Amino acid sequence: MSYHFLFELALILLSTKVLGILTKRFALPQVVGALLAGLVMGPAMLNLLQETSLMDQLAELGVIVLMFNAGLETDLAELKKAGRSAFIIALIGVLVPLAGGFFLTAAFNQGQDTLLQNFFIGVVFTATSVSITVETLKEIGKLSTRSGNAILGAAIIDDVLGIVALTIITSLAGTGASLLLVLIKIAAFFAVSVVVWMVLHRVVEWWFRRYDRDKRRFVVISFAFCLLYAYAAEAFFGVADITGAYIAGLIFAKTPRVTYLQDRFDTLSYTLLSPVFFASLGLKVVLPQMSMAIVLFSLLLILWAVASKVIGCGLGARLCGYSGQDSLRIGVGMISRGEVALIVANDGIAAGLMREEFFGPVVLMVIATTILTPILLKLVYKGREKDYSDLQESELVNRYEDAQAFDLASQALLEDHERLRGSETHHP
Amino acid sequence: MSYHFLFELALILLSTKVLGILTKRFALPQVVGALLAGLVMGPAMLNLLQETSLMDQLAELGVIVLMFNAGLETDLAELKKAGRSAFIIALIGVLVPLAGGFFLTAAFNQGQDTLLQNFFIGVVFTATSVSITVETLKEIGKLSTRSGNAILGAAIIDDVLGIVALTIITSLAGTGASLLLVLIKIAAFFAVSVVVWMVLHRVVEWWFRRYDRDKRRFVVISFAFCLLYAYAAEAFFGVADITGAYIAGLIFAKTPRVTYLQDRFDTLSYTLLSPVFFASLGLKVVLPQMSMAIVLFSLLLILWAVASKVIGCGLGARLCGYSGQDSLRIGVGMISRGEVALIVANDGIAAGLMREEFFGPVVLMVIATTILTPILLKLVYKGREKDYSDLQESELVNRYEDAQAFDLASQALLEDHERLRGSETHHP
Repeated sequence: MSYHFLFELALILLSTKVLGILTKRFALPQVVGALLAGLVMGPAMLNLLQETSLMDQLAELGVIVLMFNAGLETDLAELKKAGRSAFIIALIGVLVPLAGGFFLTAAFNQGQDTLLQNFFIGVVFTATSVSITVETLKEIGKLSTRSGNAILGAAIIDDVLGIVALTIITSLAGTGASLLLVLIKIAAFFAVSVVVWMVLHRVVEWWFRRYDRDKRRFVVISFAFCLLYAYAAEAFFGVADITGAYIAGLIFAKTPRVTYLQDRFDTLSYTLLSPVFFASLGLKVVLPQMSMAIVLFSLLLILWAVASKVIGCGLGARLCGYSGQDSLRIGVGMISRGEVALIVANDGIAAGLMREEFFGPVVLMVIATTILTPILLKLVYKGREKDYSDLQESELVNRYEDAQAFDLASQALLEDHERLRGSETHHP
Repeated sequence: MSYHFLFELALILLSTKVLGILTKRFALPQVVGALLAGLVMGPAMLNLLQETSLMDQLAELGVIVLMFNAGLETDLAELKKAGRSAFIIALIGVLVPLAGGFFLTAAFNQGQDTLLQNFFIGVVFTATSVSITVETLKEIGKLSTRSGNAILGAAIIDDVLGIVALTIITSLAGTGASLLLVLIKIAAFFAVSVVVWMVLHRVVEWWFRRYDRDKRRFVVISFAFCLLYAYAAEAFFGVADITGAYIAGLIFAKTPRVTYLQDRFDTLSYTLLSPVFFASLGLKVVLPQMSMAIVLFSLLLILWAVASKVIGCGLGARLCGYSGQDSLRIGVGMISRGEVALIVANDGIAAGLMREEFFGPVVLMVIATTILTPILLKLVYKGREKDYSDLQESELVNRYEDAQAFDLASQALLEDHERLRGSETHHP
């Protein structure tokens, strides 16, 4: 067996981490660095790495684990609590970019049968990645404000709406089946999923409560179920595997072991699968194909990605009675696209829904929106420096901070243990 | 892209886990169950799974992570402390099976150029896996005895001797180079490794102490280094990649973050890579090729695997002044082969050192010795029920129990957190 893949994986891990650390220095998420690593190492620049089938399959596994983890984090009860206004903000904030992406792409996409391709760029446009916004708001002490809460709530619903849009479009890209049949299959998939959820969520909860010796089996069994459901979604319903993974995650969400599961899948993700996924996206970008039209398209894509979320979410917020300033803040907070847009775009290439030369512009759009979001956010939150009148108690914000506090606590435990062992060895 | 590999991975995870749980019921290590899963699912029985290149590469990664973790666990200072008698027990306990395996295979292996093949089965014979012995001794309360300490010490040295034997034999299997050149390359590899260790171990220690915010980068960077060193061992010195991974582990061993690293690589291992590795071993076994000669060979292999360790280690112990009874106990405690023998055997197939029809017998030998060890151990430790006169304080035993106590403590922390979150949600 050739062992060259060890070298390739080492290169991916090193370059994504080093560039990730660099981008973090500039207060940007490490995802941007990981993408850049793929761009730099790949055919677009140094040409040290090419895509292999191992990378493709690890990347696919990586997306599945990312979506499974997103499902684990989703709290269906919170979706209801997020309320009417968060729903309206998210809905209009999905529809405006969807329509906008469609028409913008239509103007540039030549050829026949481009309807689904144009529609697909619209779907890529809908995905919001809220983590960079949350970090920025925390940094400037504005997370617990009325607008901060609205952003968090709308982002949760945005994820679900994005999944639905993705499911419909990738199913349509299938074997040329009629629209009606595809919609029936999607409806059947979601109906089956509701039944599976209702049965299995209780079974899992009962099992997790009853048994508590060897926790590894929870992790392995839930992962096997996730893969099986992702496979079943594709094989029996023609639905994207990542939709299946997300729904599998929902089944294990809010169970007594979910923190443990999240921690373990997070580890599987960051030690191997995510770096390969993000790097492989960068490898897919082919720079020489960037004609003038594509450069222009990229610029317009970035501008329109920013504008459509600000307009859509801002309009939604205004309709729900938020002030003009708060509506602008909410709109700006939803600009960043991040990994969800990339996951969707990657799926689109595999399904033949995205032309290769459009992939570069989409990656640029994701990088640009991610860089712009913190800058713009700080601008729109400027003004009255210490104003606590706007602070709001929120369960969403509390939970977010809770999870981080727990991270610190378990790290402290580990450190304490290492310190003890260290001193034992040095002074026996 | 085909998504069938999701189904295959799910099947591997499910079957290895379910059979692992079953074998654990019978107080056997889960490795046996994972092997059986591969046998049952593979061409030997149900034929539901075949080897794919993804599985091959994931299995190889799995072995590398297992060996890296073994390196992380190795304490070079303990190797010295284990002392002269542990060294003598391990050395004779390696030489007798090595010679025994060689001659036994020579009697069955027809054809030309079989010298290295016969020698290789001898190398597979040398590897001791002590975990099942430790569990059994703990269960019957004999771990902290004089013989228990000797077993633990000798097992540590046995690992290192096994690595050296494996390195030499796989290097010889290379491109038909002269023995002298191969030995020079191996010597060069170990010399370079000593220098790399001396420089990098200090650098790593300094870095780990100085920096303590984002621990993920320790994990990713050390993994990248492990892959790079495994690659370099093969590419520049013709040395097995798993030897490189083991030495990479030594560089990070005994640093302030090693507990954290072990926990993370353990997770990467059990969630994906190990199940694939053990199942893929089972998939490699081809039952129809089992002629009468092979069945006889299997039986003799098992008998001789048991006898050669008892004789070798027992002789070593007797020479070091242990009583006849204790020498027998020490010999029996070293019988179990476990994953190390499988890792070696797997490497041998890849290097063309092992004929395919010999692989089935080796897998059977590993399963048999693992099943026999606890049974025989309980027999030889029978007698005076509550005898504390033999108990000994030992740092090796303390450390082993320490690591387990830590496991429980961190689980308790997680549970507490989950309980808090659970009660928060149910009574908001």
